[in-house]
Amino acid sequence: MTVDDPAVAARGERARDWFETLRDRLCTVFEAIEDEAESTPARGLPPGRFERTEWQRPGGGGGVMAVMRGRVFEKVGVNVSTVTGEFSEEFRGRVRGAADDPRFWASGLSLVAHMRSPRVPAAHMNTRHLITTEWWFGGGADMTPTIADPLDTSEFHAALREVCDRHACADYPRFKTWCDEYFYLPHRGEARGVGGIFYDDLATDWEADFAFTRDVGSAFLEVFPRIVRRRMAEPWTVGEREALLVKRGRYVEFNLLYDRGTVFGLKTGGNPEAILMSLPPEVRWP
Amino acid sequence: MTVDDPAVAARGERARDWFETLRDRLCTVFEAIEDEAESTPARGLPPGRFERTEWQRPGGGGGVMAVMRGRVFEKVGVNVSTVTGEFSEEFRGRVRGAADDPRFWASGLSLVAHMRSPRVPAAHMNTRHLITTEWWFGGGADMTPTIADPLDTSEFHAALREVCDRHACADYPRFKTWCDEYFYLPHRGEARGVGGIFYDDLATDWEADFAFTRDVGSAFLEVFPRIVRRRMAEPWTVGEREALLVKRGRYVEFNLLYDRGTVFGLKTGGNPEAILMSLPPEVRWP
Repeated sequence: MTVDDPAVAARGERARDWFETLRDRLCTVFEAIEDEAESTPARGLPPGRFERTEWQRPGGGGGVMAVMRGRVFEKVGVNVSTVTGEFSEEFRGRVRGAADDPRFWASGLSLVAHMRSPRVPAAHMNTRHLITTEWWFGGGADMTPTIADPLDTSEFHAALREVCDRHACADYPRFKTWCDEYFYLPHRGEARGVGGIFYDDLATDWEADFAFTRDVGSAFLEVFPRIVRRRMAEPWTVGEREALLVKRGRYVEFNLLYDRGTVFGLKTGGNPEAILMSLPPEVRWP
Repeated sequence: MTVDDPAVAARGERARDWFETLRDRLCTVFEAIEDEAESTPARGLPPGRFERTEWQRPGGGGGVMAVMRGRVFEKVGVNVSTVTGEFSEEFRGRVRGAADDPRFWASGLSLVAHMRSPRVPAAHMNTRHLITTEWWFGGGADMTPTIADPLDTSEFHAALREVCDRHACADYPRFKTWCDEYFYLPHRGEARGVGGIFYDDLATDWEADFAFTRDVGSAFLEVFPRIVRRRMAEPWTVGEREALLVKRGRYVEFNLLYDRGTVFGLKTGGNPEAILMSLPPEVRWP
């Protein structure tokens, strides 16, 4: 196969359509939460609304950054990008299926939510579809609470386990361990958060792998808003907010030191505003 | 030569003594500035005092972190560390003089000052002495203003140029360019600050190179406090403070993505608290 086979391109378009549909659903739910937040400690602030910014990639394609700065979601970004191009000599040997034909097509959704309340976990979700002379899916979802609540954590993990259990192509124990190993800060000896799932190079059967990838997004769309709604009205202390700002520092350390997508994107001329949308709005290293 | 030759070790001790002396002088001046700050916009806060914390390196040696959280210096750290050990197989081929004998000795002073006022530049200064089967000095000083003032910048550059001009082993144009090239964020297309000097692998004549390295520290000790004292009483606006917090984000991006000392230190088991003392106390990515 090649990246421009009509059947391959048509599947790519289906993946892209899904990522855009999921983005719209996520934005709708998050804006609804903003409207419901009249009883939260941040009720004096106006409800947030997403602002969308289109960007073009010089090498081909582009994306839309949707960012909301609200009263529950202090800063949440939902990026959908669909890019095409050719890998440089340096990357051809390192990317699956790119050794003989460097052309690629990639589409994905990336979400990072930094919450105003230290009692609501931060969350990350990403799913993507890659095409070279091969194709594969990757993605995952994980939470970073400041004050880890066993109920939130177990609900989040259960939702992702149920998704994996419904799909033969998925392996929850492996994907959970992969997440724990990936989101780890060796210099601190700390996990970034409470984990979730992480998967990459998923290429068993296209329809099956796409269905699983859609389900990861749908599960996140269901479980994360439920956790947010349960916690968002809880009052917090100054000390808890300070702990949140310090915890966010660990998030920054992880993303800039270790996150492959961030480091790869920045060092290969990606859009820094879109890539660094993941960084928290306010951080402390006291 | 080897790292444990008595003459080599004695020179190392002289370098170490200097770094500790310079640290004490810097701390004394910075505390004096804190006391003088009764007319600054942050006069309601108590004058800061350095707190020192000793740490041991598991592989050998250790250091002292001196940190002050004050009203002019929002967070300033002055680290002196003196460490010994053996380079891993991976590093032997990459470090000067370590191919056949992996033992090393290293001592240095590292200073990062994040100021409360957006009208006072942040500053960085570092000088170090390394010994393997060879020896060399390295270091430099640079400023990162939020609102670059031509007088501050030209005074700072002039002080460093004068130091270089007094020492035959130093080359101001080369060291200035080295600094500009090193403290650059390619993903932003931005310089981290207004530069200064940067040098490494300096090994012409031990006494001459040590004298230059001392003079870099002494020049910084003179010029930076002068700039701080000139600017610290100026009132600032909320918008200027916000610009400072955003500028600090670029500082974090540089240190975690590109700074060799930070990345090398964290990935080789250095003390994360000492290494990341360079990160600003409060940062925004709005």
